[in-house]
Amino acid sequence: MVIVMKTDSKESDIQEVSKIITSLGLGVHISKGSERSIIGVIGDKRKLGDIPLELMPGVEKLVHIAESYKLSGKTFKPEPSIVDVNGIKIGGKELVVMAGPCAVESQEQILEAAHAVKKSGAQFLRGGAYKPRTSPYAFQGLEEEGLKLLAEAKKATGLQIVSEVTSEKSVEIADKYVDMFQVGARNVQNFQLLREIGRSKKPVLFKRGSATTIDEWLNAAEYIMNEGNYNVVLCERGIRTFETATRNTLDISAVPVVKHLSHLPIIVDPSHAAGKSIYINSLSKAAIASGADGLIVEVHPNPKCALSDAAQQLSPDEFGSLCKDLSEISKILGREFKYGT
Amino acid sequence: MVIVMKTDSKESDIQEVSKIITSLGLGVHISKGSERSIIGVIGDKRKLGDIPLELMPGVEKLVHIAESYKLSGKTFKPEPSIVDVNGIKIGGKELVVMAGPCAVESQEQILEAAHAVKKSGAQFLRGGAYKPRTSPYAFQGLEEEGLKLLAEAKKATGLQIVSEVTSEKSVEIADKYVDMFQVGARNVQNFQLLREIGRSKKPVLFKRGSATTIDEWLNAAEYIMNEGNYNVVLCERGIRTFETATRNTLDISAVPVVKHLSHLPIIVDPSHAAGKSIYINSLSKAAIASGADGLIVEVHPNPKCALSDAAQQLSPDEFGSLCKDLSEISKILGREFKYGT
Amino acid sequence: MVIVMKTDSKESDIQEVSKIITSLGLGVHISKGSERSIIGVIGDKRKLGDIPLELMPGVEKLVHIAESYKLSGKTFKPEPSIVDVNGIKIGGKELVVMAGPCAVESQEQILEAAHAVKKSGAQFLRGGAYKPRTSPYAFQGLEEEGLKLLAEAKKATGLQIVSEVTSEKSVEIADKYVDMFQVGARNVQNFQLLREIGRSKKPVLFKRGSATTIDEWLNAAEYIMNEGNYNVVLCERGIRTFETATRNTLDISAVPVVKHLSHLPIIVDPSHAAGKSIYINSLSKAAIASGADGLIVEVHPNPKCALSDAAQQLSPDEFGSLCKDLSEISKILGREFKYGT
Amino acid sequence: MVIVMKTDSKESDIQEVSKIITSLGLGVHISKGSERSIIGVIGDKRKLGDIPLELMPGVEKLVHIAESYKLSGKTFKPEPSIVDVNGIKIGGKELVVMAGPCAVESQEQILEAAHAVKKSGAQFLRGGAYKPRTSPYAFQGLEEEGLKLLAEAKKATGLQIVSEVTSEKSVEIADKYVDMFQVGARNVQNFQLLREIGRSKKPVLFKRGSATTIDEWLNAAEYIMNEGNYNVVLCERGIRTFETATRNTLDISAVPVVKHLSHLPIIVDPSHAAGKSIYINSLSKAAIASGADGLIVEVHPNPKCALSDAAQQLSPDEFGSLCKDLSEISKILGREFKYGT
Repeated sequence: MVIVMKTDSKESDIQEVSKIITSLGLGVHISKGSERSIIGVIGDKRKLGDIPLELMPGVEKLVHIAESYKLSGKTFKPEPSIVDVNGIKIGGKELVVMAGPCAVESQEQILEAAHAVKKSGAQFLRGGAYKPRTSPYAFQGLEEEGLKLLAEAKKATGLQIVSEVTSEKSVEIADKYVDMFQVGARNVQNFQLLREIGRSKKPVLFKRGSATTIDEWLNAAEYIMNEGNYNVVLCERGIRTFETATRNTLDISAVPVVKHLSHLPIIVDPSHAAGKSIYINSLSKAAIASGADGLIVEVHPNPKCALSDAAQQLSPDEFGSLCKDLSEISKILGREFKYGT
Repeated sequence: MVIVMKTDSKESDIQEVSKIITSLGLGVHISKGSERSIIGVIGDKRKLGDIPLELMPGVEKLVHIAESYKLSGKTFKPEPSIVDVNGIKIGGKELVVMAGPCAVESQEQILEAAHAVKKSGAQFLRGGAYKPRTSPYAFQGLEEEGLKLLAEAKKATGLQIVSEVTSEKSVEIADKYVDMFQVGARNVQNFQLLREIGRSKKPVLFKRGSATTIDEWLNAAEYIMNEGNYNVVLCERGIRTFETATRNTLDISAVPVVKHLSHLPIIVDPSHAAGKSIYINSLSKAAIASGADGLIVEVHPNPKCALSDAAQQLSPDEFGSLCKDLSEISKILGREFKYGT
Repeated sequence: MVIVMKTDSKESDIQEVSKIITSLGLGVHISKGSERSIIGVIGDKRKLGDIPLELMPGVEKLVHIAESYKLSGKTFKPEPSIVDVNGIKIGGKELVVMAGPCAVESQEQILEAAHAVKKSGAQFLRGGAYKPRTSPYAFQGLEEEGLKLLAEAKKATGLQIVSEVTSEKSVEIADKYVDMFQVGARNVQNFQLLREIGRSKKPVLFKRGSATTIDEWLNAAEYIMNEGNYNVVLCERGIRTFETATRNTLDISAVPVVKHLSHLPIIVDPSHAAGKSIYINSLSKAAIASGADGLIVEVHPNPKCALSDAAQQLSPDEFGSLCKDLSEISKILGREFKYGT
Repeated sequence: MVIVMKTDSKESDIQEVSKIITSLGLGVHISKGSERSIIGVIGDKRKLGDIPLELMPGVEKLVHIAESYKLSGKTFKPEPSIVDVNGIKIGGKELVVMAGPCAVESQEQILEAAHAVKKSGAQFLRGGAYKPRTSPYAFQGLEEEGLKLLAEAKKATGLQIVSEVTSEKSVEIADKYVDMFQVGARNVQNFQLLREIGRSKKPVLFKRGSATTIDEWLNAAEYIMNEGNYNVVLCERGIRTFETATRNTLDISAVPVVKHLSHLPIIVDPSHAAGKSIYINSLSKAAIASGADGLIVEVHPNPKCALSDAAQQLSPDEFGSLCKDLSEISKILGREFKYGT
C-alpha cells in the first residue's frame, strides 16, 4: 500500500503516520516528491486491520497496489486448479457443459430434459428448485420436492446435479441431493451463505453478481475458501450496464482476466447474460473461444411451456446443434468436448 | 400488456395468441398497423402467470405498460404512508434522522455516539452488529453482543434503535433488541430474508441495492409487504456507476421518482453514497431539499479510531453542524427538524 | 407507437388525442382495459414529428414498439450488406483484418508495421493521424503528414488504408489519402461530422460510443446513410461500465444483436476494449466465434516505443500468432481467413 | 506516479526502469516491499510523455497518484474562480439561472419565453439553434436564423444569451450573437471544437458527457484553458446508468466533488437529467442545496407545442414557482437569488 500525502502536509504528519505503521511491525519507505510525499508500506498490509490512516492529518488518500484477496489469487497458487465433481474434472482439458431447465417443474419435464441434454454430451444437469424471482407473484420453485426430482433424474441418466441454494437452510437440504451447489448472482455477497457453503466440502458453482467487480468477486470467493472449501468454480453470467438489448451484458473479458488473476476454473452462463435464446449459440461459441472451461446453458424440453425465463431456454434440438459446434471448435482451441453419448 | 407481432406474422398467429389469452378470462384488442399488428391484453395480467407468449409463432416482443408491483404502488394506495416507530413518525412533516457509527465496537463507543447524536437532534441510533464486508479479513461485527450494547444505549438515551439483519437467524435475534430492522444493499434481493421480515410486524428500513432499478426495488419491497408487513421505509444509498470519485453515485432523483410511484416514505444515506465525510454535509442538504423524509448518517465519536468505513463517518461536531443546517432548511421546505435536545 | 392513458383519464382526453393523430393522416385503435386505456397509432409515426403527445391531458406515457432507425434496419433491407473497399469485401465469407499502430509516428515505423501486418494476412493498415486524447498534453498525431505516410505504406504493400477523421476539415484532407474513413467512439454522435461523411461515398468504419446503446448507434448510422452513403461498417469497441479490470467492457453480445437488427457488417476492436495486450488474443477469437465479420487490432513494430496506447498494442509476432489462430478457427465457423501472404 | 513491479521482477529490471526515468531529469525512490518493489517517480510526470513504462520487463502496473489536469485544478489555483459574463458573475454569492426553451422555434416563441423567464428572475436566456438529435428525422434547429432571434430577444429583455455550438463553423457564426457558448454533452471530447473555443475569450458553459468521469471532464476543460480561455463554467447534466426511470442519473455528488478538486464554477441542468418536468423542482432545489452556483432550466411558453424535448420543459408558471423557492432557499445557504424583476 502507498499513502499519498497532501501537497501541504507537514514533516510531522509524515512522522506520525510512519510511527503507527512501524508500531505494527510493518516497514515504511518515505519518498519526497516535488509536489507531495508518499509513504510506502512494507509488509502484509492486513496487519493494519481497519486503522483509518486516510483520516490522519496530512494524508490525502491510500492507494492499494496489491489485491486484497489471497486464496483465490495466482500469488497464492500460480498453477490452474481443477475441481473434481465425482470424476468430472472442471478446469482441465475437457470442456464441461451443464444444461437443463431454468426451474424443475415436474418429474416428466426434468426427466425429459435430463435425457435430452445427456444425449448431446452434457455432463451436468441443472435445474432450479429454489428460485429467486424479481416479483413475489412469479413461480418460486418446487423446493425440496424439486431436489428429489433432480436426484431421480441423476439415477436415470448418471448426470451430475448442480442446483442453486439461497439460504443456510436450503444448503442443509440440498446437501442430500446435489453434487454441486450453485450460488446465484443475487447472493454473491450473502456472506452468511458463503460461509455456510465454505464449511461444506462440496464443490460450488459461484456466479458473479450483476454489479460485482472481478476484484469483489474474488474477494467473495475468499469467504468460501477461507472456511476450507477450495472447490470453487466461477461463473460469468453478465453484468448490469446501460444497454437493454440483452438482459445483461456478458463480460466476456472476465474469462481472460480471471485466468490472469486467479487459479480457479471459470465457466460462462450465456442464457442469463442474453436473456434471449436466439443469441445463445453465438455467445456460447464466443465463451469457449475466449478460454472458458465450460458452459451452463438453459435447456427446456418444451420452452413454450416453461414456467420461468422461457425466452432464454434452448430446445433440445437447438442444444444438440450447439454441442456439435462446441465439439468442433474445442479441437481448434486445444480442448475437448464429446458431442453425443 | 401489449403484444407486438412480427412484421411477417400471419393472421393465424394472431388468432392463436388471442385464443390463449381469452381462455384465461382476459380480453384482447387487436390493432392492425401499417407494418405490424399489436394485441392489447385487457384485465389483470397476473392471470397470465409465466406463460411465455413471447415464444409463440409470430410474436416479436411483449411490452409491459403497467408496473408489476402492487402493494408498494400509488395505484394501490394514493396517499403517502407514515411508518410509526414507537411514536416517531417517518413520512410525516417532521424529518427523521438516524445516526451512529458504522459498526458497534464497544460499550464506551456506542454510548458516547448515542449521547452525541441525541444531543444534536437525532431520533434514531444506528450501529452495525452484523457487518457484511467485501473481504473476509475485515472486521465482521460484534453480533448479538453488539445488539445488547445498542439496547443499553437506548435505555440511556431514549433513542430508537435501527440495525442491520443479514440472515433469517439474525432476524430472530435482533427482534429482541431493535426497534427497526435494516436490510442492507447487498440483501435487497435476498428474498428468503425479505419474507422472514415480512412475517414480523416490526418496521424495516429497506436499502436499495447498488445495481437495483427503482422498479426492482419496489418489487422487492413487495416481498415484505406481501407477507403482511406494511411498515417499510425505503432508503436510497447510491448506485454503482462508472464514476469512481465517490464510493457510489447518489441517485438523488430516486427521491422524487419514488414519491411519484409509491406511497412509502423514503430517506437517504449520504454516507455510503459518498464514502467520504467531506461530501456528506452537501449531500444531506440536497437530499432534504429533494423531498426526502429523513437521513441515515454515520457518526463516530472518534472517526480516526473507527474499525470500519472510517473515511465516511462524521465527528459529533460535524454532525451537530449538519443538524443545525437541517433545522434551518427544513422550515423553508415546509418540514420540521428540531436541532438540539 | 402505443399511447398509454392514465388510470383516471377521461373519455374526452382519449378523443382529443385521437383527433390530433387522425388529423395527421394516421389511424388510431383504442383499446379500453380494466385499469387503463391505450391508443395504438397506425401508420408511419414520423408523421407525428415532434408533437409532444405525452403532455396532453390524460396521457401517461408513449411506448415505442418499432425502432426509430430505418435505413440501417432489417425491415428496410433483410439480407446482409457487403461493403466493398477496392475489392476487399467486408461482410462476406472472408474475415477482414485491419491492423497497425495506434498512431502513425514516423515513416520507418509505419512501413515496418505495414509489412509486418501484411505478412500475417491483414488486408487493411490502420494508423491514427488525428488522435483524440483525454489530456491536451498527450501526443495528438501527425495530422496530414501522417496521412501521407499511410499512403506511402499503401504503395509499398497494397494494403487498404483506414484512418480516423475527427472534424469536417479532416474529412476533406483524409479523403485524398485513405480508402476508408474511421469515426471514433468519441464522435459517434458528432452529427455534423456524420453528415459530412454521408455526403462522401467512401466506406466508413463506424465505432460505437462508449455509452451508446445499440439503438442509438443504429440511429447515428442513419445520419450517414440518410445523406446517401450506405457503405457503413459497424465496429464494437467496448462500452463503459463499472468494471475497471479492462479499459472498457467488450459487449460481445452486440455482434449477434446487430446481426439480428441490422444488415450492416460488424467488426470488433479488441484493443480498445481490453486496453491490455495480454487479453487481445482471447477476445479476438471470441469476437470471430460470436459471428463478427472481422477485427481491427493495434499492432506496433515495437510496442515499448509507442507514443500512445502502448499497453494495448501487439508485437508483430503476437499478431502473427493471432492470425494463425484466426485462420484455423474461421474454417470451423464457415468463414475464411488466409494466414500469411 | 508509482511504478509497481511484479513479484518476480529482477534487480536489473528495477535498474532499467530507473535509468530511463532519471535520464529525463526526474528522480526515483525505490521501495522494496516484502512481496514486491515499487518505484516512486519524483518530478513533473509530463516529462515522461507517452513512454510506455508499463511494457518494460518486470513492471506490473503504473499507479497515478496525482491528477493529470493542471489549469482546472485546485493545485494551480486554490481560490474559486468567478466567470464574468457582461457583469453577471457566475461562481460568486449570487445564484445564476439560465432558462429558456430547448430549441428556438420562432420569433414569437423565443420572445415570449424571454419575457417570461426574465420576469421570474433569470439572468440568461437559453435556446438551441444547432440541435444534436439522436435521430436524423427529428427537428435539427433553425441554425443562424435561431441565433438572430436570440439576439433580438436580448435586445428586448437585456438577458444574456447562451447557446450551443456543435462545430468549428458554428463557433464562428455564434460568436456574433451569443454572450456565452455552450458545449453539449455529446461534444465533451470533441477536442477540435474545444480548442476552437479555447482560442476565443468568450465564456463557455461546458456540459459533462453522459459517460465522462469527473477526472476526464476536468481534463477536457484543460483543452479549452490550455488555449488561453479560462472562462469555463462546468455544468452537471446527468450521467448514463442502468436506471431508466429518469432520462439520465443526475450525479449530484459532482457538485461537491468539483468544488473540492477544481476552482471552476459549476451549475446544474436538471432538465436533461430528469427528462420529465415533474421532477425538475425537486432536483433544482437539491442542486442549489448541494452547493451549485446556479441552474440551467428548460422553460417553454407552451410546452405542449414544443418541437423538441417537450416532456422536460417547464411552463412559465412552473418556472416562476421554482424561482420563488430558489429565492427562499438561497438565503439559508448564504447565497442570493432575486425572484421577480
